[in-house]
Amino acid sequence: MKKYFYKCFQCGNELSASEVESKLIYLCPKCGSTEKNQPLKGVLKIVYDYESIKSKVSKESFIRLAGGKIWEYPYLWPLEYKDFGFTSISPKVLNKLTLAPNNIINIDLEGSQLRLYDDSRNPTLSYKDRASILVALKALQLGTNEISAASTGNAGSSLAGICARLGIKSHIFVPKNIPANKRIQIQSFGANIYVVDGDYDEAFDLCLEVSKKKKWYNRNTAYNPLTIEGKKSSVFDMFIELNGEMPEYIFVPTGDGVIISGIYKGLRELKLLGWIEELPKLVAVQAEGSDALFRYIENQKFEYKAATTIADSISAGAPRNLYMAADAISKTNGSVICVSDKEIIEAQKELSQSHGILSEPAAAASFAGYKKNTAPNSMLMITGNGLKDISSLESWNEAQIIKSYANWEIDLL
Amino acid sequence: MKKYFYKCFQCGNELSASEVESKLIYLCPKCGSTEKNQPLKGVLKIVYDYESIKSKVSKESFIRLAGGKIWEYPYLWPLEYKDFGFTSISPKVLNKLTLAPNNIINIDLEGSQLRLYDDSRNPTLSYKDRASILVALKALQLGTNEISAASTGNAGSSLAGICARLGIKSHIFVPKNIPANKRIQIQSFGANIYVVDGDYDEAFDLCLEVSKKKKWYNRNTAYNPLTIEGKKSSVFDMFIELNGEMPEYIFVPTGDGVIISGIYKGLRELKLLGWIEELPKLVAVQAEGSDALFRYIENQKFEYKAATTIADSISAGAPRNLYMAADAISKTNGSVICVSDKEIIEAQKELSQSHGILSEPAAAASFAGYKKNTAPNSMLMITGNGLKDISSLESWNEAQIIKSYANWEIDLL
Repeated sequence: MKKYFYKCFQCGNELSASEVESKLIYLCPKCGSTEKNQPLKGVLKIVYDYESIKSKVSKESFIRLAGGKIWEYPYLWPLEYKDFGFTSISPKVLNKLTLAPNNIINIDLEGSQLRLYDDSRNPTLSYKDRASILVALKALQLGTNEISAASTGNAGSSLAGICARLGIKSHIFVPKNIPANKRIQIQSFGANIYVVDGDYDEAFDLCLEVSKKKKWYNRNTAYNPLTIEGKKSSVFDMFIELNGEMPEYIFVPTGDGVIISGIYKGLRELKLLGWIEELPKLVAVQAEGSDALFRYIENQKFEYKAATTIADSISAGAPRNLYMAADAISKTNGSVICVSDKEIIEAQKELSQSHGILSEPAAAASFAGYKKNTAPNSMLMITGNGLKDISSLESWNEAQIIKSYANWEIDLL
Repeated sequence: MKKYFYKCFQCGNELSASEVESKLIYLCPKCGSTEKNQPLKGVLKIVYDYESIKSKVSKESFIRLAGGKIWEYPYLWPLEYKDFGFTSISPKVLNKLTLAPNNIINIDLEGSQLRLYDDSRNPTLSYKDRASILVALKALQLGTNEISAASTGNAGSSLAGICARLGIKSHIFVPKNIPANKRIQIQSFGANIYVVDGDYDEAFDLCLEVSKKKKWYNRNTAYNPLTIEGKKSSVFDMFIELNGEMPEYIFVPTGDGVIISGIYKGLRELKLLGWIEELPKLVAVQAEGSDALFRYIENQKFEYKAATTIADSISAGAPRNLYMAADAISKTNGSVICVSDKEIIEAQKELSQSHGILSEPAAAASFAGYKKNTAPNSMLMITGNGLKDISSLESWNEAQIIKSYANWEIDLL
């Protein structure tokens, strides 16, 4: 039995790891396609030999890990390893990639306890680092020293930041209308940045075309199966931090559907390993102006609608990983909640002012969704730091009353 | 023997903990003073019964702690405790305050290894959280639910963020010319913000006056001895992470002189406890336009000069904690290095582009200082995240060449 192989999520086609990785295959060669304004077809997933892992690793020994370091459990990653350590990558290098551990924050909400999974203190301050780290480690093992991605912001700065830590060159394709702050975050990490005269879709396609010619390893979200795979790590970190006692509901801000698919993958693996009995229900939270998954589940068919929301990190007219995300909802008896931009901003404000968690709008969406549909024993994924999008904070902090010195003296009297 | 008492750094006057804390005394009642454009006089320091701690806690048991949680070693904090746990504060509350652990990053620099102590992933993304946390815990134990501070940016957003996590009301006095981004970070955490029609000095004085009248607990830097005390925690976290093997040199960005004084305090305590033999040498790095400590040590007298530097977090014409900082340099056989704004920006750029560490200008100063005066076995303190001051990043990312779609197509040919 091989350590792992790739399997098409849609047609079930199986491919060996060596074939996929030596030929840089991303989507299923039989049924895969990227079409304008359509979800990807033929996304691959990675399958391990769970029975073998189960016989070698116990739940108890897994829980004793520190968390925040994916290299602590190499048997659950599609990477070359030896004696439970990644070959050719030294611990000093791996330590540069430590994710925020100990990031579950308990807050009081009208008398009851609610837990936030605060992923806003990762190396580049967003959840995307989980995918970038796995992709970058794979690139190192493939002997590739250049990685590309199309991005509207966080994925690009995440890849650029992780690559800079590892001495890998990154190439980021961004749409013309990228906000200056997001562009600066990508550039600051020394990425080559290509401003594409078009939208995200066009940046996505051009990135693939150029990457193929240049033989750059590609990190386009969902297109590279390791982006989904990397995002499962939060589940393992959560499992460790909670001593194996998982919540009943997990609220996940959802745009392209990659984070929720990764979370589902992690949960399912815990179940296959016999380490949990029930799958937590996944609650996808979407912005009203970017509700493709919600509509897909309602109508059982995808229809493209241009997305518009303040929560740019979950703005996706054609979610790349739509079908896998819908499956994650269905298999966990989950649901989708849509929230307005106003509710998102209110949630951002409350999280920050009342609980000290400064999140970007997309990250606050999970809290907005929870406020709309509370559920007991919930965990809310906070996927990006508020300082990544300071303009969203401006909108509700400009108007606040600022006392001048003179006014204040009057108050004192 | 009492658990701890306060002692004036300048005249040696000793005060009991109960007197200082019940009367909200901050500076030495005998010799203390705050004068415009002058360092503070009569700053208090906290003295513990080290012999007693030594007999109860071993170096080995201390090193086994996880780090990032100051409540793990209550015997070294001026807080009420019982059975080695803080009374009246639950672990769930304390966990909200976890500092970034595992934050030592090894980088390769021209073939040799250099270590960064990356404190830019603390709850509000700066070193200041170390002081804010201790002050906030003390406020809770004093039964005070309102804390004030004067700030030009990071200290204010740190206090506001930590207070929001704990349900404490914060009042922040800022100078009129505060950059919008810094103001927004403070406001976002729900602080009451008072824009003072004057500079930092005037904000400082007004804050003290109002706080006294309103009976708010005050966190003005250096003025409240717990700000210095809280900043020693990085030394303990470093000691834990390095298994007790401390570096030979520690580079510290220095403005008001509070961080370096806190670091010295922590080092000295490790020595008093018999856990280290040699004190690492402290290297203060100052901006050329804000070099009061450098000049004080050169000339053995303080002279006020308005500060001007891009590194706003270390911009201080009259460093509040000048005398204690100078003592830290002298007692460790340390030194002061001055770097230009240009060198700071170059350092910021190199840290980010080549090593993936996005820091604010003040934080990059330690790297700039190191580049100017390299020393073996060094640790560089990285004290704040680059996204706290995105305008500084703008300055070197605007000019970078951005390829348009069309240009890129030409490149491909």
